[in-house]
Parts: sequence; C-alpha cells; structure tokens
Amino acid sequence: MSDMLKPGSTIGILGGGQLGRMLSVAASRLGFKTHIYEPSANPPAGHVADRVTTAPYDDAEALADFAASVDVITYEFENIPTEALDLLESVRPIRPNRKALAVSQDRLVEKAFLNDLGLKTAPFAAVDDEVDLAEAIAEIGTPAILKTRRFGYDGKGQARLTSADDASQALADMSGAPSILEGFVNFTHEVSVIAARGTNGEVACYDPGENVHKDGILDTTTVPANLTGMQGVDAVLLAGKILNALDYVGVMGVELFVTPQGLIVNEIAPRVHNSGHWTQNGCAVDQFEQHIRAVAGWPLGDGKRHSNVIMENLIGDDVDRIPAIAKSGDAIHLYGKADAKPGRKMGHVNRITGPAGQ
Amino acid sequence: MSDMLKPGSTIGILGGGQLGRMLSVAASRLGFKTHIYEPSANPPAGHVADRVTTAPYDDAEALADFAASVDVITYEFENIPTEALDLLESVRPIRPNRKALAVSQDRLVEKAFLNDLGLKTAPFAAVDDEVDLAEAIAEIGTPAILKTRRFGYDGKGQARLTSADDASQALADMSGAPSILEGFVNFTHEVSVIAARGTNGEVACYDPGENVHKDGILDTTTVPANLTGMQGVDAVLLAGKILNALDYVGVMGVELFVTPQGLIVNEIAPRVHNSGHWTQNGCAVDQFEQHIRAVAGWPLGDGKRHSNVIMENLIGDDVDRIPAIAKSGDAIHLYGKADAKPGRKMGHVNRITGPAGQ
Repeated sequence: MSDMLKPGSTIGILGGGQLGRMLSVAASRLGFKTHIYEPSANPPAGHVADRVTTAPYDDAEALADFAASVDVITYEFENIPTEALDLLESVRPIRPNRKALAVSQDRLVEKAFLNDLGLKTAPFAAVDDEVDLAEAIAEIGTPAILKTRRFGYDGKGQARLTSADDASQALADMSGAPSILEGFVNFTHEVSVIAARGTNGEVACYDPGENVHKDGILDTTTVPANLTGMQGVDAVLLAGKILNALDYVGVMGVELFVTPQGLIVNEIAPRVHNSGHWTQNGCAVDQFEQHIRAVAGWPLGDGKRHSNVIMENLIGDDVDRIPAIAKSGDAIHLYGKADAKPGRKMGHVNRITGPAGQ
Repeated sequence: MSDMLKPGSTIGILGGGQLGRMLSVAASRLGFKTHIYEPSANPPAGHVADRVTTAPYDDAEALADFAASVDVITYEFENIPTEALDLLESVRPIRPNRKALAVSQDRLVEKAFLNDLGLKTAPFAAVDDEVDLAEAIAEIGTPAILKTRRFGYDGKGQARLTSADDASQALADMSGAPSILEGFVNFTHEVSVIAARGTNGEVACYDPGENVHKDGILDTTTVPANLTGMQGVDAVLLAGKILNALDYVGVMGVELFVTPQGLIVNEIAPRVHNSGHWTQNGCAVDQFEQHIRAVAGWPLGDGKRHSNVIMENLIGDDVDRIPAIAKSGDAIHLYGKADAKPGRKMGHVNRITGPAGQ
C-alpha cells in the first residue's frame, strides 16, 4: 500500500461543476475526502465535498492554503491559468501532469503532438491574421472551421466557413485570439474512448462509445459503438499511445472520427469526459472512480462493461422531463444546478439496454 | 411533479454513519442536498453532505433548526429518542413514519405485529423478571436467546441459553432492561428482501439476497439467493404485506429464515439495510436511491437486477486487504472511518459474478 494514497486522505479538485461533483462522490467510495477549489459560489460539487474554497485562480493565498490542505491535486477542466498551476505544483503533485494540460489547452499544439505520434487529425493551419487565414483556406479549402486555439468547449469560440467569402466574419468572431483553421473530415460517425493510465504505467480502456451531438453539444453516447473489431482495437491502441507519450496519470477522453480511411483524432480531454458518463451504470468501476484510483496511485479497474448503455444528456429544460424519466427506471444523474438555462448541462440519464454484448 | 420533492430541495438525515453517507450520495444523484444530524463529531456522512449538525438528540434548539432547514426528514437507524421525533415531526414530515419506528424499535411489539399479519416468527415471550423467564423457558424450551426489547443490533444485548441453568446469567446480561425470549428456529439459511413503498402506495422489491453471518455480524450477501420460485414469491408477498400494513414510505430490510415449513420473519429494519448493499452494483437504481425516491415522493425504480453480485463486508482490519481488492476489479465502498476497530464496519466490496440469472 506504500504508493497508494491512504483512505482518509484528501483529494483536491480544481473546478466545482458536475465533473468535480461526480469525482467527489467516487472519491468517497474509496474512503477519500475532497476539497473543491472553485471561483463561483455554491458549486454543484460543494454539495458532496468535505470542503469548498471559493476564490479566483489569481488568489495566491487561497491557492496555497488549498494545496497545503490536500494530498494530491486533480482537475475537472483543462483551462486552468498557468500561474495558478505553478503555485499549486510547488506544494502538491498535480495529476494528470502539466504536459497533458499544455497539449490539450491549445488546439494547435494538440494536433501537432498527435501528428508527431503518427496519429491522423483533420488538416489544420495556424491563423493569427488575414494573411494566415487566406493561406490556410488555399491549403485546406472550404468548408472549414476556424477555432480559437485556447479556451474552447461545446462549440464556443468557433466559426464555420462555407466559402472563402466567410473569412472576414470568421476572423472577427475570434476577437483577435490566436486561432486554427481546421478542414472538415468526411466521417460516418464519432466515437470516443475513455482511457486511463496509472502511476505505474498500466493502461485500462473502456469500450468505445458512439456519440451524437445536437446544436454542438453532446446529446447521446451509445455503448457498444458501431465499430468493426479492428476499429475497436485501433481506438484502444491509439489511446494508449497518447497516454504513454504524455506519461499520463488519470482518465482521458479521446474523441475519434470514424472514416473509411480509418480513425481520425478529433480532440483529447485530460479529464473525465461527458461521453464516459455511461460507465456509471455500465461498469463496476466507473470513469470517475477510475480517475480517482489513478491520481491516488491505486490499481486501476479493468474497464470491464457488464451492460449495454445509452447515455442521454439533459440540457436546459430537458430536466422538465424528470417526472416521466423517474417512472422509467432509467438511472438519473442530476447536477444540483439551480437554473436550467438553455444549453446548460443539468444532468444525464443512463438507460441499461441489456447485458454487455456487441 | 406536484407531489415530487423538487431537485435542489434538502433532505434531512438523522444519523451520519455509512448508511447516511450512502443515502447522501444517492440524494445527490437526484439533485438533492442533504443535511446530516449526528451527535458524534466528524461523521462519515459529513464528507459528502451539504451540511452537518453536530448535536445530541436532546438539544431542542439544534433539532428545531435542523428541521426548519430541510424539506423532509429520514433516518439511517431506528433507535431515535421519541422526544426528538416528536419535536422534528412538528416541523417537517418524517419518512418512514412513526408507526414503523415504534414497531421496529421494540422486538416484542414487532413480533406481535408480524403475527397479527399472519406472518410466522420464532416463538417468543416477554421477560421482565425471573418468573417471566422461567415461564418462558417452560413454554419455548432451550436452546433459546434472551434479547433486550430495544436498542439491539449486531448481536449486542443478547444472551444464549443452552439450558435452563443459563437463566440467571442471561437475565443479568440484560441489566434489568425489558427483554424477550426467542426460541431457536431450525432454518437452512437466511435471506433478506429489500422492499420499498412510495408515497402513492406502489411497492417495489429487489430480488432476495442470501446472508451469511460471522461472529454475529453480516459477512456476505449473495444474489440470487438459494430459493425456490415459490419461496421467492412468498418473500416478496410478505414484504409487501408488512409495508402496506404500516402505510410505509421508504426502503425496509426484511430478514427471513428459510425453513422446510416456509419462511419465518427474523426481523425488520425500517431503513436501508446492509444486506441491500449489493444493489449498488447490481441494479440501475440502488436501495439508497430507492429510499430517497420514496421519501421524496418520486416514482420508485422497479428493482430490476442486471447482474449477479456477492457483497462482502469489510470488518475491522479487513480493510488491510484493500490493496489486493483494488487489483481485482471488484467495486469498493469505504465509509471514511478513521479507526479500524474490531467488529467495526469499515466498508464493503461488491463482486459482479455475471449477468442476472437464477
């Protein structure tokens, strides 16, 4: 047990949203306490955490106190300011490590990293100004999509170009932020692999799930995904390659486009991932516990799936359907958010569709 | 949704042990906050609750403040002082109701209630003094077991009589508390049914589990239990009979002895039950969520089981086996208790043994 964080220890979690909330619950199953660091008041994770610090990421004293009160630090989102990470890391280990954050915080760095590993991505080019954009369009063609390099999620900070005529408006939408033009990939469907790597280098993968988006936000994940056996193996191998290259510790979400020419990496997220929520009702050890096991230096669960599952996100006023869903026997997971704003992730539902099968 | 407690509401839980802890986690899945009331400092449930009140059950002000801060009150143990319940109930509803508590707090009342329903129990007689005990032994015979009528659990407050010669010592062990002599039942094995009843009277049952005890404490529960189809139906019917008779709302654990002459009720517990912990990894909606659904006026889950499970309790220094268990892929549930005293329930492990089958 020497390298395993002992039950009773405290895991610090940066970010108090639904992912932090479900990480906190998973940590409790292993006997850990959690301490949430979150700038916003009354965070969802705070309802199930031992401690909550409400402070901005530039509050050096709050960060230092937080770090000193915990045994290891992890996070629920990747866009944490570098200065905060520097300070925290001087006190306690941060898992997953800084390299994983650096790569995933910047779409350009991420795609270059993936290509260097021999993995396919959409064609891309850096865009800082009009000249870059014109050159990028000439190289990649249209349709294409212009995205800020940093701080993007759920379709925010993105502009579509159906032709070169859209260039000026798209660039204006970026508000001067360093950007990246990505070509469209002609894919049949999207899958994601939730993979984990332990402190001892062991890797475990959950079966890939098939994702369907609505209005740029994940709508459903279905397991098993529609993949050939060979594609399934490819998905696992490339996830392992990414984790090993980063000397990664924790759970990572790897989004993949399925094309006739093989799997193309869409993006990676160095954290538990919405497309892995199905594991809560499909596996003995879910992605949240798997992440806690990894960052705590525990052996990983094997990722084995006991059931087929369809996960459906509840966005905005989808939560009004809860009375009907509650009657169905499906597993409900609500996030404790007060206001059901449009586009806001309020919860999700896992429907077990049968015993594990292809 | 009119009668359903709205997500964001607060559920008050009397008792901050492992059952309160797992109730709190389940409540969070449905978007509820919890407020724990517990006399002992640093209760396990407090690590995953929104609020904790640390105060004794005779602190009227703390009780009133607690009740006023929650929307409904439930409990993790049945031995709550009557005066505290009177005060709490004057402010907020208590579910399960007082009748269920009154019946289950007293072994004599409980057995009489069960017999009145036409259900079989062990032979029993009230014992307040030596004369009663002599008469009871004459009627019931030996071996028999003398138990205090109230406040017993995990084999505490009990004395075995192998012959009438043990009478004086057994009575002395009761320290003058009103007691009950119970005859031995010649049973082949013990099962329990975890049943639930909603505010609208609907009843749901989990499949019976087979229990094995060690040193008077539950060791393992295995699902499915070794029962004929008819015994399985009997178990469910009698549980439903008990819940309906009490106009019960919540989850109840019903322990049954299996005998060649049919099922005999050992005892009932008006709360989530150790022998129902397997549901956490065997069902989409576990006993903790089922209880929260019931007390919150939500529709119940149907109790459907997706997997066969063996639950094993981790007692005292059994927790030293955690490093090995963590490697096995079994689902670990630790309670966040600091000291692994002998006989103390520190956690449990659920092993999924295959898809649901008989």
